[in-house]
Amino acid sequence: MQKGIFITIEGQDGVGKSTQIEFIKNYFTNKNFDVVLLREPGSTDIGEKIRDILLDKNNKNMSHVTEMFLYAAARSQMVHEKIIPYLEQGKVIICDRYVDSSYAYQEYARNLGDCVRVVNEYATEGVMPDITILLLLDVLESKNRLNKFNKDTNSSLDRIELEGITFQQKVLDGYIAIADRYKDRIKRINASQTIEEVSLDIKDHLDKLLGVNHAL
Amino acid sequence: MQKGIFITIEGQDGVGKSTQIEFIKNYFTNKNFDVVLLREPGSTDIGEKIRDILLDKNNKNMSHVTEMFLYAAARSQMVHEKIIPYLEQGKVIICDRYVDSSYAYQEYARNLGDCVRVVNEYATEGVMPDITILLLLDVLESKNRLNKFNKDTNSSLDRIELEGITFQQKVLDGYIAIADRYKDRIKRINASQTIEEVSLDIKDHLDKLLGVNHAL
Repeated sequence: MQKGIFITIEGQDGVGKSTQIEFIKNYFTNKNFDVVLLREPGSTDIGEKIRDILLDKNNKNMSHVTEMFLYAAARSQMVHEKIIPYLEQGKVIICDRYVDSSYAYQEYARNLGDCVRVVNEYATEGVMPDITILLLLDVLESKNRLNKFNKDTNSSLDRIELEGITFQQKVLDGYIAIADRYKDRIKRINASQTIEEVSLDIKDHLDKLLGVNHAL
Repeated sequence: MQKGIFITIEGQDGVGKSTQIEFIKNYFTNKNFDVVLLREPGSTDIGEKIRDILLDKNNKNMSHVTEMFLYAAARSQMVHEKIIPYLEQGKVIICDRYVDSSYAYQEYARNLGDCVRVVNEYATEGVMPDITILLLLDVLESKNRLNKFNKDTNSSLDRIELEGITFQQKVLDGYIAIADRYKDRIKRINASQTIEEVSLDIKDHLDKLLGVNHAL
């Protein structure tokens, strides 16, 4: 039995995941939980090398199936090396993207269909989040936020971020579809609200999660 | 319909694949076929980067599932970028290892079972070799040959070659099992013979292949 808590946060680039991850981290740290932050793809030495291949702008001709396998490879290494041990140690894991990203990006936006689910059952070893926070935002708005962030931090767009607005809309549609598929686990949040309002909505879900799991 | 010919060569490290690939290449070149050599993992820019991760001795803690996905990722890129176009162009492809390596190494030696077949059906897009040459050799003998080769060329063992003799025996057992599974496609060759004898055995199979496919 897993003793820890596994939370993932999802949404297309620019919806404000990083800001809310800070909020969730502080929420649990203030309650004296032992919190670890992970991100996908990456969070292990092997996963970070896979991340470099996935996000490298030069790898334009990567096949969609190859992309699916590389995400699955990074994920399985993270599950094996980090998530399972951390859950056994009773930690709270907050992971920036997880398997739902593969559903939204590969199954839906890349249109790979059911094979994404089959492959990811092997990749996750069946370890699924206790709760998934899905930040929903109009794609034009998320694109604007992303551009502003990259300008402010002097960053450039990676291979996935370089995909156009049509692709981002398919990702968003994919997220909405999987939120229906996994109703109990995935919590939809309106990310067009202020940062504070979004955090408050997330807090409600975390309070409920702790109320159920820990009777605090 | 594929117009080319797709040949793969298999066996644990040290059985003499490279030498016989040269023989097969010359066999077809002498008959004026357009021959291309590929190797796994690799043969594409993306695949070679994946190869670096797979064979890097430092990646000792790679999970077996991650390893399976990385081989599948490199394979799907090669199928997409090289094998399908080359077959459409009517070329003869000689590939050093292909999906049977995943069956022998991941399904059998790593004991991952059926998921390796499921995953590789997606990776190969159903493109299978017309013929597979399987070089069979006692594992102590292949280990000796590999050590001699590395000494002569001043090379060091990679992550997979560093696996012990017990692992290599499981790989060999796996190859024998899949030779039974794919009786028509996989041709077993006794690799303990002289180089010339092995080449002659291979020539018999190639002659038959051409006799059937091309009525030469």
